[in-house]
Amino acid sequence: MNTEYPIWHPFAPLKGAWPLQEVVEAKGVELKLTNGEVLVDAISSWWVNIHGHGNERLAKAVYEQILKLDHVIFSGFTHQPAQQLAIELMKILPSNQKKLFFSDDGSTAVEVAVKLALQYFYNQGEERRKIISIEGAYHGDTFGAMSVSADEGFYAPFKDLMFKVDQVPFPAGDNDAEVINQFEKLVSTENHVAFVYEPLLQGAAGMRMYSSTTLDKLLKIAHKYGVFCVADEVLTGFGRTGKYFASDYMTEQPDMVCMSKALTGGILPLGVTSCADSIIKAFDNDRVDKAFYHGHSFTGNPVSCAAALESTRMLQEESCQNNIQRIVSAHQLFAKKIETHPKVKHVRTLGVCLAVEIKTDSGTSYFNDLRRILYDFFISKNVLLRPLGNVVYIYPPYIITNTELQKCYTVIEEALDKVV
Amino acid sequence: MNTEYPIWHPFAPLKGAWPLQEVVEAKGVELKLTNGEVLVDAISSWWVNIHGHGNERLAKAVYEQILKLDHVIFSGFTHQPAQQLAIELMKILPSNQKKLFFSDDGSTAVEVAVKLALQYFYNQGEERRKIISIEGAYHGDTFGAMSVSADEGFYAPFKDLMFKVDQVPFPAGDNDAEVINQFEKLVSTENHVAFVYEPLLQGAAGMRMYSSTTLDKLLKIAHKYGVFCVADEVLTGFGRTGKYFASDYMTEQPDMVCMSKALTGGILPLGVTSCADSIIKAFDNDRVDKAFYHGHSFTGNPVSCAAALESTRMLQEESCQNNIQRIVSAHQLFAKKIETHPKVKHVRTLGVCLAVEIKTDSGTSYFNDLRRILYDFFISKNVLLRPLGNVVYIYPPYIITNTELQKCYTVIEEALDKVV
Repeated sequence: MNTEYPIWHPFAPLKGAWPLQEVVEAKGVELKLTNGEVLVDAISSWWVNIHGHGNERLAKAVYEQILKLDHVIFSGFTHQPAQQLAIELMKILPSNQKKLFFSDDGSTAVEVAVKLALQYFYNQGEERRKIISIEGAYHGDTFGAMSVSADEGFYAPFKDLMFKVDQVPFPAGDNDAEVINQFEKLVSTENHVAFVYEPLLQGAAGMRMYSSTTLDKLLKIAHKYGVFCVADEVLTGFGRTGKYFASDYMTEQPDMVCMSKALTGGILPLGVTSCADSIIKAFDNDRVDKAFYHGHSFTGNPVSCAAALESTRMLQEESCQNNIQRIVSAHQLFAKKIETHPKVKHVRTLGVCLAVEIKTDSGTSYFNDLRRILYDFFISKNVLLRPLGNVVYIYPPYIITNTELQKCYTVIEEALDKVV
Repeated sequence: MNTEYPIWHPFAPLKGAWPLQEVVEAKGVELKLTNGEVLVDAISSWWVNIHGHGNERLAKAVYEQILKLDHVIFSGFTHQPAQQLAIELMKILPSNQKKLFFSDDGSTAVEVAVKLALQYFYNQGEERRKIISIEGAYHGDTFGAMSVSADEGFYAPFKDLMFKVDQVPFPAGDNDAEVINQFEKLVSTENHVAFVYEPLLQGAAGMRMYSSTTLDKLLKIAHKYGVFCVADEVLTGFGRTGKYFASDYMTEQPDMVCMSKALTGGILPLGVTSCADSIIKAFDNDRVDKAFYHGHSFTGNPVSCAAALESTRMLQEESCQNNIQRIVSAHQLFAKKIETHPKVKHVRTLGVCLAVEIKTDSGTSYFNDLRRILYDFFISKNVLLRPLGNVVYIYPPYIITNTELQKCYTVIEEALDKVV
């Protein structure tokens, strides 16, 4: 416990609930604690750290960039790190993406997308004002990002100040036809500017996965009614789903893609919103009164861009791609092995994400008590796995070894056998 | 021009309006362009870069931090860089500040403050829901930050989705008594949760300065009615006003302080919201249902914290403090010199900020045409000064030399004599 420091940690009461562990070093997939224990970081430290910790190429890229050009105002000025990163991202983004808008994190990347969609119609003099999203979504914690997210406990103290959006139920498989129907009924009113969604994988809702065929149908309907499709790939981007982006599983392309987390290899904050021509055309002029007035002091920060550039290059290298496929296969085998376990309600995988939903009397929820019991058990076994309620998931750095992966699988099996 | 890169720059039309300069290197106060020209960065690259560019101590701190511990989830875990930074910030923050909440930029720092104030009353079961701010304010570009900001052109496309706030006129001196009156009339309804303000200096509105005595009166009134005072020190923090924080000029202390920009020495994104006990007490328990559910993936990022720690240490060193006072004195002398210039409507200084409001037929505004004419003139003279409409200001790194400062003054005088 380190309660003596004047720090307010996120997502926890100030007292009691969650003892703090102090990390002194991190290398590869290992987190070394002050008490000498070493944990396997099986969740890439909040889903960001894809190349492992303490990567020397990233460290060098950042160091050299600070000495060469640490920062410059991105209005009226540009620089190589942003330009090279833009070129590199265009290699892996859906082919219709044409311009990148830089910001600082996932929340701001989503705010930018929402604002661009709204201003597109405003610039055209059209009266559309509504967003549509999927129940259970998590798009961030700023007011715009909260507004398009799930209607649940986290937001109760702020709800009356959030703007109203439409939502359709999560397409869980058995209800997909009904979701598609509801979706078309809503967007056919022609009042929506954008459909914002986490493609194929809802993270905070419990690593819930849904059908690419269904999502493709939703995207087609949205486009039929002129509604922009905003893929929030903050969680899913950069190889997480087995492809560069979850959007690569669809035939219908998104109009905007929001990126953060793994973008810098998970070592520095950076957000990017990419846009297709469909969006750009309402802004592609010299009209000061139609320009997009949004920016942050560190928009296009060269240092974060340099980290992202090196990380994106590493991602495309054969060794990294092989690692991803190795984890995908291992996950599939393990899922097969435990799917019939009496304590397993549902096991699912998508790319390097493996999620085990555990049978519980109190229902699947973020606040399920199992969360704390399992978390403590895994820590006692030297593995950082941070259940979302009764859902245990692995979301590892790509450099995790087979031995380390096996350790994660073993502690999950032990938990199923002995703890729940 | 670098229009061939797929990048969308902030605050400008996509075509024509603002030619892009490419920066290849930055050292000290100098920005070196691809065309070989060298500019004096007289605005610290969007008000962030206080120690100059390419600082070796900051570069080293960041490099070593990445190799030691680049990132770890800040929920359940903590680390030295955040702890040491917290201790260091407590040395210079107003003495009533007790806990720090980390985020990624100025917008998120403000969103956190607004959400904490709202949830404070929600947790207590009180029906307060409104924010009050000052006309002309700029607090950021996410929906919550926009909502508490000025009611002006930037936000027109999003206005119907922003939440409503109360605003009082800017206390320009002659109207201060009336502003204080209006303020008390509004907050005495007891419906407000927070008063959000840029202390003493409104940046985007044109580096407008106002009286600390008047602000002190507003703070006292707010506290009298139990309204939290949120000092948005994103622009003014870290020595900019001649003291560590603008709030240091007041006797009444703020309940929260928002920080970003100069926090990391202006080389990496980071936001911090500090809180006094007055706020903390509604959260200082083990109740999961009353906890603050806000966080970003990079909340407490060790790398940004390491930069901020080194920068904050440098700020407190005698040489840095002497530099600040040297600039303050030079500014005051130059202001005296030009205050009677026939083209000068008003010249004002606060700390290292010097602002010259130029007489113009078309009124003081961000969109005043003079902006572009002056900007181009200054660039042609190798000085980066980026007027806010008809207001030219200097906001330099503290390491700027007397010779470089003199160059800034000279080009401003030339502009007054020949351009406007």
